[in-house]
Amino acid sequence: MIEGHGDDTYNYRQDIKSNFSTNIFCKKNIGLENHLKACLHTIYNYPSPDASQLKNVIADKENVCNKSIIVTSGAVEAIYLIASAFSGHSSILSPSFSEYEDACKMYGHNISHFSDLVDVNPEANLVWICNPNNPTGKIFLCHELERILNYDQNRLVIIDQAYESYTSEKMFDSDSVIKYPNLIILKSLTKKFSLPGMRIGYLVAHPDISERIKNRMMPWSVNSLAIEAALYCFNHEIEFKVDTSTLINERCRIAKKLQELGITTFDSQTNFMLCRLPWSTAKSLKKYLIEKHGILIRDASNFHGLDEQYFRVAAQTTEENDNLIKGIESWLKQS
Amino acid sequence: MIEGHGDDTYNYRQDIKSNFSTNIFCKKNIGLENHLKACLHTIYNYPSPDASQLKNVIADKENVCNKSIIVTSGAVEAIYLIASAFSGHSSILSPSFSEYEDACKMYGHNISHFSDLVDVNPEANLVWICNPNNPTGKIFLCHELERILNYDQNRLVIIDQAYESYTSEKMFDSDSVIKYPNLIILKSLTKKFSLPGMRIGYLVAHPDISERIKNRMMPWSVNSLAIEAALYCFNHEIEFKVDTSTLINERCRIAKKLQELGITTFDSQTNFMLCRLPWSTAKSLKKYLIEKHGILIRDASNFHGLDEQYFRVAAQTTEENDNLIKGIESWLKQS
Repeated sequence: MIEGHGDDTYNYRQDIKSNFSTNIFCKKNIGLENHLKACLHTIYNYPSPDASQLKNVIADKENVCNKSIIVTSGAVEAIYLIASAFSGHSSILSPSFSEYEDACKMYGHNISHFSDLVDVNPEANLVWICNPNNPTGKIFLCHELERILNYDQNRLVIIDQAYESYTSEKMFDSDSVIKYPNLIILKSLTKKFSLPGMRIGYLVAHPDISERIKNRMMPWSVNSLAIEAALYCFNHEIEFKVDTSTLINERCRIAKKLQELGITTFDSQTNFMLCRLPWSTAKSLKKYLIEKHGILIRDASNFHGLDEQYFRVAAQTTEENDNLIKGIESWLKQS
Repeated sequence: MIEGHGDDTYNYRQDIKSNFSTNIFCKKNIGLENHLKACLHTIYNYPSPDASQLKNVIADKENVCNKSIIVTSGAVEAIYLIASAFSGHSSILSPSFSEYEDACKMYGHNISHFSDLVDVNPEANLVWICNPNNPTGKIFLCHELERILNYDQNRLVIIDQAYESYTSEKMFDSDSVIKYPNLIILKSLTKKFSLPGMRIGYLVAHPDISERIKNRMMPWSVNSLAIEAALYCFNHEIEFKVDTSTLINERCRIAKKLQELGITTFDSQTNFMLCRLPWSTAKSLKKYLIEKHGILIRDASNFHGLDEQYFRVAAQTTEENDNLIKGIESWLKQS
C-alpha cells in the first residue's frame, strides 16, 4: 500500500507539533545524529550488498548464526521477500498491518483472515501474526503461538515483533528459530530505535528458510547511512531504551479519558491503541486535529475489517497526551 | 548477485586511496554533506512511501508527467520491479551489468543474450540494454536503438542510462517514452551525482507501463536522507557536473599505457573501460593493487561471457591514474 499509512507528515504543510500516528514514542538522539555527521563519507561508496557487517553484529546480539539473519529496508522488505519466496495459502491476522496482505496478494497467494488463533485456516501453509499487534496493541502469549508452531512443522509462521520494545510481556527470543524451524521473526529497528526515516529491519529464521528468502533479495537495499545508524544504535542500546511502563500507563490514562468522552477504546497491552468514534469519521477528526492543534493521528479506517470511525494513537509525553485529549474533546463538541 | 560487484571497499581493512572499481568519478560535495547534516531530523519520521516530492521534482526536470516516474532504491530496484512486473523472454546485452539477468532469473523469465543489436532474439518480449554499457563503455546510438524500439511495439525495451553523464554522445531524452510507449529508461542518481552509498535511482516509462510496475512496489524503499540528498542534488546540478571530456581523455591515456604494457584494452566511449591481462588473473592483480598500492579495481571475471583475465577501471584524477599505471606495471614485472 503506497497511500494510507500513518505518519504521513509529508502530506501536510502545517507544523506537526505532536505525532500520535505511528506506534512509537518519538524521541531524538543527539549521539546518533553526531555519529551520522561523522559518517557522511560513506555516501561516496557502495554499501555492502547485504549489509554484512551489520548482519554479523545482529547475529551476535541475537545469539544466532549470521546465516539466520537477513537485513532489510525496514521490516516491510522482509514481508515482501517472504511473500515472494513462498507461495500457497496465507492466513493473516485481522485487523493488522496491511502490508502482509498486500505482499501476499502481489505474489498470488490465496488469502484468509483470522482474529482468533483458533480460526487460522487449516489449509494455510503461511500464517502471519503481528505481536504486539498493530493497530490493536493486543498480545499473543508465547504458549499460544507455540501451539500454532507445533500444529504443522511444514507451515511457516511469521511473527512480526516490530513492537516488542513497547511491551513488558515475554516475546520469542530469536534463537527460537532453532527450536522451531518453521518460525520467522521480523524485527524493526525503525521501531526499536524510533528511526522510521532510516528504513532498517531484519528477519531471523532457520538457515534453511533464510537461504530460500535470500534467493529473492536484490543487492544494496539498505543504504550506507542506514547501516551506520543501526551499528551505532546496537552499540548504544541503553540510550534508546523506552520507558515502557510509563508509556503503557499513559496509554491507559488516555483510554480512560477518551471513554469518558464517549469514545470506544479497545484493549491493548502496549503503548498504542485502537479507538472508535461514536459518530462522524476518523478522517474528519484527523483533519481537525492537524489544522487546529498540529496533532497527527492515524485514521485506521483502511485496516482490514475496520470502518471509517476507527483511529489509532500511540502515547507520547504527558503534556502531549493532555493536548490530544483536549483536541479530541473540542472536536467532539463542535462536530 | 549479492557478492562479486565492484566498489567492495567494505571487504578490505586496508585504506583504499584510489577507487577505480566503480564506473564513476569519485568526488565529494561539501554542500551536500552540510545539507544532510541539516536534514538529520528527517530520520525520525517516515519518508513518503513513494518519495512523492522527489518524484515531482524529477518529473519537472525530465519534462514528463509524474505518473511516468518511479523513484527506486538505486536503479537496481527498478530492474527488479520490471522483471517482477513482466514475464516472458528477456534478451539481455552481454557482457553487461549482471543484475538484469539475476532479476529476470528470479522471476522465471526465459533468457537469451546478444552482443550485437541484430542478434536480439526475435522471440523476446523484453530487451535489456545498458547504454553506455557496463563494463565495456560501448555506446549504442539513438537511431540504432530506435530500430529495436520500432521492431515490435509490444516488445519492451529497457535502456539503462545510468552512465549517461559520462559520455558526450546523445542519449534518449526522458520524454521519448511518450513517442515510444515500449521504452523504459533507467537512471541512477548513484552514478549521476557520485553517491553510490545513498541508493537512489528512478525509471521513466509511459504511464500505462509505469502503472503496471507501480503495482509491484513496496512502500518506503528509499529512505529520508536519500530523498533529501536527491532533492539537494537536483537543486545544485551544476556542482555535480563531471568534466566528461577530460575523463574520457584520461581513460584513453590509461588505455594507451596499458596497451604498451601488453594489456588488451577494449573500445570505450566513456570514462571506464574493460581490459584483459596477458596472463594470470584479475583477482591476483586486484589483490596486489589493494595490498601494495591501496588501489581498488573491478575484477570483471564474473560478467557473463568474460573470463578470469578481465578487469575494469574508471579514470580518476591524472595523479591517481598515473599511480594505477605504475601499480599495474610493477605487478606485471613480478608476476
